[in-house]
Amino acid sequence: MREQLMTMLEERKEEMIEIRRYLHQYPELSFKETNTAKFIAAFYEGKGVEIERNVGNGYGIVVTIKGEKPGKTIALRADFDALAIKEETDVPFKSKNEGVMHACGHDGHTAYLMVLADCLIQLKSSLPGTIKIIHQHAEEISPGGAKSILDSGILDDVDHIFGAHLMPNEPAGTIGCNSGYTMAGRSSFKLGIQGAGGHGSSPHLANDPIVAGAHFITAIQTIISRRLNPFDTGVITVGSFDGKGARNVIKDRVELEGDARYMSDETRETIESEMHRIVKGVEAEFGVECDFLYESDYPPLYNHPEITEFVKTSLEKTDDPDIKQVIEFPKFSGSEDFAYYLEKIPGTFFFIGCKPSGVEKVYFNHHPKFDMDEESLLVAAKSVGEVVCCYFEQNCSQIGETVEMS
Amino acid sequence: MREQLMTMLEERKEEMIEIRRYLHQYPELSFKETNTAKFIAAFYEGKGVEIERNVGNGYGIVVTIKGEKPGKTIALRADFDALAIKEETDVPFKSKNEGVMHACGHDGHTAYLMVLADCLIQLKSSLPGTIKIIHQHAEEISPGGAKSILDSGILDDVDHIFGAHLMPNEPAGTIGCNSGYTMAGRSSFKLGIQGAGGHGSSPHLANDPIVAGAHFITAIQTIISRRLNPFDTGVITVGSFDGKGARNVIKDRVELEGDARYMSDETRETIESEMHRIVKGVEAEFGVECDFLYESDYPPLYNHPEITEFVKTSLEKTDDPDIKQVIEFPKFSGSEDFAYYLEKIPGTFFFIGCKPSGVEKVYFNHHPKFDMDEESLLVAAKSVGEVVCCYFEQNCSQIGETVEMS
Amino acid sequence: MREQLMTMLEERKEEMIEIRRYLHQYPELSFKETNTAKFIAAFYEGKGVEIERNVGNGYGIVVTIKGEKPGKTIALRADFDALAIKEETDVPFKSKNEGVMHACGHDGHTAYLMVLADCLIQLKSSLPGTIKIIHQHAEEISPGGAKSILDSGILDDVDHIFGAHLMPNEPAGTIGCNSGYTMAGRSSFKLGIQGAGGHGSSPHLANDPIVAGAHFITAIQTIISRRLNPFDTGVITVGSFDGKGARNVIKDRVELEGDARYMSDETRETIESEMHRIVKGVEAEFGVECDFLYESDYPPLYNHPEITEFVKTSLEKTDDPDIKQVIEFPKFSGSEDFAYYLEKIPGTFFFIGCKPSGVEKVYFNHHPKFDMDEESLLVAAKSVGEVVCCYFEQNCSQIGETVEMS
Amino acid sequence: MREQLMTMLEERKEEMIEIRRYLHQYPELSFKETNTAKFIAAFYEGKGVEIERNVGNGYGIVVTIKGEKPGKTIALRADFDALAIKEETDVPFKSKNEGVMHACGHDGHTAYLMVLADCLIQLKSSLPGTIKIIHQHAEEISPGGAKSILDSGILDDVDHIFGAHLMPNEPAGTIGCNSGYTMAGRSSFKLGIQGAGGHGSSPHLANDPIVAGAHFITAIQTIISRRLNPFDTGVITVGSFDGKGARNVIKDRVELEGDARYMSDETRETIESEMHRIVKGVEAEFGVECDFLYESDYPPLYNHPEITEFVKTSLEKTDDPDIKQVIEFPKFSGSEDFAYYLEKIPGTFFFIGCKPSGVEKVYFNHHPKFDMDEESLLVAAKSVGEVVCCYFEQNCSQIGETVEMS
Repeated sequence: MREQLMTMLEERKEEMIEIRRYLHQYPELSFKETNTAKFIAAFYEGKGVEIERNVGNGYGIVVTIKGEKPGKTIALRADFDALAIKEETDVPFKSKNEGVMHACGHDGHTAYLMVLADCLIQLKSSLPGTIKIIHQHAEEISPGGAKSILDSGILDDVDHIFGAHLMPNEPAGTIGCNSGYTMAGRSSFKLGIQGAGGHGSSPHLANDPIVAGAHFITAIQTIISRRLNPFDTGVITVGSFDGKGARNVIKDRVELEGDARYMSDETRETIESEMHRIVKGVEAEFGVECDFLYESDYPPLYNHPEITEFVKTSLEKTDDPDIKQVIEFPKFSGSEDFAYYLEKIPGTFFFIGCKPSGVEKVYFNHHPKFDMDEESLLVAAKSVGEVVCCYFEQNCSQIGETVEMS
Repeated sequence: MREQLMTMLEERKEEMIEIRRYLHQYPELSFKETNTAKFIAAFYEGKGVEIERNVGNGYGIVVTIKGEKPGKTIALRADFDALAIKEETDVPFKSKNEGVMHACGHDGHTAYLMVLADCLIQLKSSLPGTIKIIHQHAEEISPGGAKSILDSGILDDVDHIFGAHLMPNEPAGTIGCNSGYTMAGRSSFKLGIQGAGGHGSSPHLANDPIVAGAHFITAIQTIISRRLNPFDTGVITVGSFDGKGARNVIKDRVELEGDARYMSDETRETIESEMHRIVKGVEAEFGVECDFLYESDYPPLYNHPEITEFVKTSLEKTDDPDIKQVIEFPKFSGSEDFAYYLEKIPGTFFFIGCKPSGVEKVYFNHHPKFDMDEESLLVAAKSVGEVVCCYFEQNCSQIGETVEMS
Repeated sequence: MREQLMTMLEERKEEMIEIRRYLHQYPELSFKETNTAKFIAAFYEGKGVEIERNVGNGYGIVVTIKGEKPGKTIALRADFDALAIKEETDVPFKSKNEGVMHACGHDGHTAYLMVLADCLIQLKSSLPGTIKIIHQHAEEISPGGAKSILDSGILDDVDHIFGAHLMPNEPAGTIGCNSGYTMAGRSSFKLGIQGAGGHGSSPHLANDPIVAGAHFITAIQTIISRRLNPFDTGVITVGSFDGKGARNVIKDRVELEGDARYMSDETRETIESEMHRIVKGVEAEFGVECDFLYESDYPPLYNHPEITEFVKTSLEKTDDPDIKQVIEFPKFSGSEDFAYYLEKIPGTFFFIGCKPSGVEKVYFNHHPKFDMDEESLLVAAKSVGEVVCCYFEQNCSQIGETVEMS
Repeated sequence: MREQLMTMLEERKEEMIEIRRYLHQYPELSFKETNTAKFIAAFYEGKGVEIERNVGNGYGIVVTIKGEKPGKTIALRADFDALAIKEETDVPFKSKNEGVMHACGHDGHTAYLMVLADCLIQLKSSLPGTIKIIHQHAEEISPGGAKSILDSGILDDVDHIFGAHLMPNEPAGTIGCNSGYTMAGRSSFKLGIQGAGGHGSSPHLANDPIVAGAHFITAIQTIISRRLNPFDTGVITVGSFDGKGARNVIKDRVELEGDARYMSDETRETIESEMHRIVKGVEAEFGVECDFLYESDYPPLYNHPEITEFVKTSLEKTDDPDIKQVIEFPKFSGSEDFAYYLEKIPGTFFFIGCKPSGVEKVYFNHHPKFDMDEESLLVAAKSVGEVVCCYFEQNCSQIGETVEMS
C-alpha cells in the first residue's frame, strides 16, 4: 500500500497546491466557514464514503473511509478556519476576503489532507481498518470545534488519532515530534475592580481601583515566581488594563484581562486557585469589590509517548527523499484544541516544516505576512500517509494495547 | 458710604438673581465666553467708567471705578466661565446650552459683583481711592485667565485684591475665612511607558509595560508616605491607566495620567523631583522607555494673614443681619487661579455659604445637580461691600504697609 | 505678687543651675528614679506643704501649695526621668551613671520648677487659689507616669494645667506656643508573619514570609497616601524587619515592628483599622498566618486654644527682659504623655528655647551631645511664673468657664 | 573482567558497609577532612598505584590505576566531606563528631568507590586503559573541591568521567539517569541598601532602606515571571532580610542575602543581568546606595547525552539481579560541583536509589535523620563497575569520538 500511496501523492502534488491556493483566496472566520465546508464536502461526494456534515458546534465534516479488511480505526485531522487578519503578502492568490486570512496554514492542512484522503479512498480495498478524516472547523477561537466533535460521539470508536501542523521555523522536509506535554493549556481571566470614584484631590473619600489593580498585578507575579515548581512552565499575562479616565478623577472601576499558559493540569490548578486567592486578598487589603472570571480554555496538549515514539520511528526509518529528517520539536506555549482529542484518544500531534525557501526573515503563524513553502504540502501528506501505512502494516494493535491513558 | 451701599444692595437683590438666572441659562465654556463677556461689558457701558475688554488670554473685562478722592487701589474679582457638564437640575432657568453648565457658581459670582460694582459706581463721589472690577474669563481650565490678566499689567497699581467663592457646604449668611495656604496647588502629569509588545505566552520576548506601570503606581505612593513632611499636605492621583488591549497580547505601550495637589511650593518641588526620580528608576528597573511630562498648574492659594484677619474682623464686627457668622473655613484641596493674583498682590480669597435651604442632600460644585440658595448673592455683595467700606474707612494704608510678600 | 516672684526667681537663678547640674550627674531611668524622687521630696520637706509621694505607677510626687485666699486650682508639671543614652558631652557635671543621661532636659524642668514652687510657697499668703506641683516620673517610656497620676484622682480638682519643655531649636528667651493638636499621638505594632520554611530552590514547597512581608510594607504606604485626609498628619514606619537567615533557606517566619504617629484620634483610628485590614489582606493573598499586635500609646497632645491664647497673651504683654519673644511653635511629631492630662484638664504645653549660645551645631533632645543654655532655666521659671500670676490676677474663672473639652 | 569484578564486589559487600559506618562515625567538615583523607590514602598504600594527596584546594586524593593494556582514560569520583548538622538518627554508628554528620551519603560514596577501586586494581592486568579514582574533598561548600582538582591538571588526560550519588527517593536496586541539564546551577547574592537613618516620625528627613528593600523584593519576582523563557527553570530566593531595629527608628542600612538556581548558563546570565538592572533601578527610584555582590557558584550540571545514553544502555542490558531497573531520574534544583568536571570532560552523573526499606517516612539528604539502605552500596559499586566494564569492553572510543563538548 505504501508505495502506491506515495506515488499517488507525488502525482497530485500540484492539486494540493491548487486547493491550498483556492482556500487561501477565500478564507472564512471560525464558526463562519460555510463555503469552505461546502467546498470540502463537495470534494468527497460521489466517492463512496460516508460524509457527516455540520458535526459538533459548527461546520465540521467527518469522512469515514472503511477499509475492506477489518482492523483498527484511526482518525486524521486538519482544521480549516482562518483568522481576522488583513493579509500583507504579495502572493497572486492573496485573500479576497478583506480582513480575513489563512495566516496559520490551515489552508495547507486542509489541502494535503483532502488529497491524502482521496488517495486512501482509492486504496481502501487494501486497507485493514477504518480511517476517519476530520475536517475541523473553528480551531482558532475558543471553545473551538474539537471538543464538540468529540462530544458528538462520532469518534467514539477511534483507536488512535493523528494531527499535523505546518510550522515555518523549519524547512520543508523536516518533521518535528515532541513527547508528553508539548503545547500549552490556556486560561483567560477578567477582573473587574470596583472601588469608589471621587475627586483626585480627596483620595480618602474615594477608593482608588487603579492602586488596587497595580497591587494585584504586582502580587500575581509571585504565583509564577514562588508558587510553581521551578521545573514547571507557567505564564500569567495581564494584557489589558482598562483604566482610561480623567487625570484628576479617581475612577470607580477598572477592568483587567489576561491569560495564563501552562504545560500540565496541575499547573493550571495552581494558577487558578492562587489567582482566586490573590483576588480575595486584594479585596480584603483595599476594600474593593472584585468580580473575577477565570475560564480554562484549551488544555495542555499531551502527546502520548508511545504513539509519538511510533510516529517518530516510522518517519525516521522511511527512505522517502521528501522526508528529510525528524527532529525533537521544542515544546511551546501556543495552544491547540487538538489537545481535547488527546485527552480521550491516544495519539500525537506533530509538526511539518514549511519555511519559505530563500527568504531572509521568516514570518510566523498569525503574522499578516505569514507564508509557506508549498513543497511542505507533499511532505505533510507523505508523512501522515507514512504513519497510516506503518500503523496498518505493523501489528498496530500492539501500540494500542499498551497505551495507558493519563 | 456703608449704609447707602447696603441699602442699595438690598434694593437690587432681585436684579442679582435675575442676572444670575440669565447667565445660568446661557453658560459658556472657558475661553469661549463671547456672549457672556458682551453681556457684562454692555452692563457697564454709559456708566462713566473705563471698560477694558479682552484682557489677558481671553474675554477678560476690567472695569475701573475711580473714586473722586485720592487713595489706594483695590481689585475685586469674579469669574464667569462655565463647565462641560450636562445639567441635571429641574430649575426653570436650566442651561439652554446643552452639555454646558454653570455648576460652580460663577454665574452667581458675576451677578453679585455686577450689581455691587454698579452701586459703587454710583457712590464714587465719596470713594477715597480706586476699585478695579475684574470679570475674569476661564478660571476652570488651565492656564486660566488670572495669570494673563496679571501679566497684562492692568493690575500693576493694585494695592490689595479680594475674591469670594460661593460654597454649598455652609448656609447663606455664613462667611468662611482661612489664613495662609488655603487651597491647593496643582500639577498634572502624563507618563508614557514604552515597552515591547509580544504574545502573552512569551513575556521574555516582550517587555510588559503594564507590569512596569503597576510598579510605578506602587512606588509613587512612597512620595506621599515617606518623602513629604507629615505635617505637609500632598496628594498624587493616577486618574487614568490607559492600557486596554487584548487579553493574550503584551502591549507595547501604556499611558498614565494623573495630578498632584499640595499646599506649598516646597511640597510641589518635592513631588515633582521625586516623580522624576521614580520615572528614571522604573526605566532602569524594567528597561522600558518613559516619556514623562509634568506640568505645574495653579499654585497653592496663599491668603495673606493680615489681609485675611482684616476681612475677618471687618465682617465679624458688622451688625448687618444678612451676614450671620464668620467661621474659619477649612483648607481644601481644590485649586483656583486666584492664587496667581495672590502671588503678586496682597489679598485674600474667602467663602460665601450658599447651601440651598430645605434640601436633604447637598450637591457640591461641579456636580450636575449643583444648586445655590440665591439669598447668598446678597450676602456675597454685602460682604465684599463691607470689606470695601472698611478698607476705605480705615486708615487702610496700615494694612498695606505691613504686608510682607512671601 | 508678680514683681516679688520675678525678683525671687532672679535671685535664685544659680540655685536652679546647681540643682540641674546635680540631677544631671545622677540621672535615673524611667520607673527607676528612686534617688531623684527622694531628692525632690526632701527639698519640700518642712516647707509647710502637703507632699504626696509614689503617686501613680512610680515615684511621682505631687506637692500642693494652698494659697491663703480661695480660688481656682491649677497644676504645673515637670518630668524627672532620664534616658538610656551614654553621654558624649564634655560638661564638668557629666552623668556619673554610665549609660544613663538627662538628654531630654528633664533635669532642667525639675530644677526650674522646684525653685519656682519654693518661691510660690513663700508667696502663698497672697495666692488666691491652689497650685499643684507635679514632679512626674517616667515620661520617656510608655505607659508613662502621667496617665497613672491622673487615674490616682489627685488632680480631680484641678481647673487648668500647664507644662513646659526645653527645646534647643530656639535660643533662651524665646517661648513657643501652638494651639490645637501640637504633638503627635503614637502607636506601636508588631507583625509576625508565619509562612512555611523550606529550601531556597523549592519555593513551591514553602511559603516565603519575606515576600509577604515586602508586600505588606508596600501596601501600608497606601494608608498614608490614599486613606488619610491629605490635610491630616500621619506616619507609619516599619523600623524593624527581623528576617535574618541563610541565603538559601526560605524562612518560616519574620517579624516586623513599627510605629505610627498622628495628630488626631480620627487619624489614629483610620491607621489602626486600615493596618488590620491590610494584615488580613496579606494573609488572604499569601496564605500566611499573621499575628498582629497594635497598641496605642500616648495620644496626640491637644493644647486647648483658649488656654493657649491666654498663655501667649500673658507672655507677650510682659515687659520682663528675660522673656524676649513669643512665637508660634511648629507642630511636631514627637509624643508626650502630658497629652493625657490635656485629655481631662484644660491646659496647654509650651516650649522654652534653650539653644546653647555660641555653638555651631545644635544637638537635639535624645542626642548623646544634647546640651542647654542654662539661662533658659530662669526663662522657664519666669514664664511659668508669669502664667501663674496672670492666671490668678485676672478673673481667671473667665477662661475656665468657656473652655469646652473636646 | 566483568564477571570477576561482580563476584569480587559481592564478596566485599560487608567491607563496604564497615568502611561506610566507620566514616559515618568520624565525619569531617568540608576543607577540614584531614583524618578522612589520611584514612583513604592509607587504604591505597602498598597497592602499587600512584596516590596523589592534597590535590586542589584541600585534601583531595587521586589514585591512578594504570591498566596493563593501552587504552582510554576515565575518571570515577566520590566525595568525602560531611555537613554541619547534628545527627538525629539512632544508628549504632552515629556520628561521634558532635554537630557534624554524613547526612548526604558521601560516606557511602567513598566506601563503595574504595572497594570498587581496590577490585579494579586487582584486575589491572586485564584493564585496557587507565582509571583515575577521585576521592574529592569539599563538595558541600563553595568553591568546592572539584574545580581546583580540574585546575590542577591532573585530569587533563581523562577522556570520560563518571560519578554517582545515593538518593533516598528510590529503593536500592533502582538507578536513575537524566540527560542534559540535570541539576541546577547556583548563584548567591548580597545586597546592602544604604539609606539614611532617622526618627520614625520624620521619614522625610531620613531615607528608609526597609521600604526600598521591600520594593526590591517585589521587583525581582518579575525576573522569574516575565524575563525567563517560561520553559526554562529559574528561582530567586531572598533568604535573609537583615533589618532588625527599633520600632521607632528608621534604619540607615539593611542587608539582604539570597540565592538563585537555574538549569542553563543562559538563564544564569539573564538572572544576573536583570538583578543588576533592578538594583540600579532601586537606587534611582529610592535614592539609596546599594552594594551588590552576585557570585556564581556551581554551574548547572550537564550530563552529556551520548554518555548518559551509554550508561543507561549499559545498565539496562545487564542481568545482574542487584541492578533492578534504570529509570529517568527527574531534574532537580540541587547543585553539585561535579558540574565543573562535566564542563571540561564528557561524562555523566547518575543516581543510586538508597531508600531505607521498611520505613514510613523518608528523610532526604541534609536532614538530621537522613539514613540509607546499605544494600545500595553494592548496587553503586556494581553499577559503576558495570559502566567501567562496558566502557572498556566496547570499542569505547566510539563514544569518545562523537561527543561534542557544549
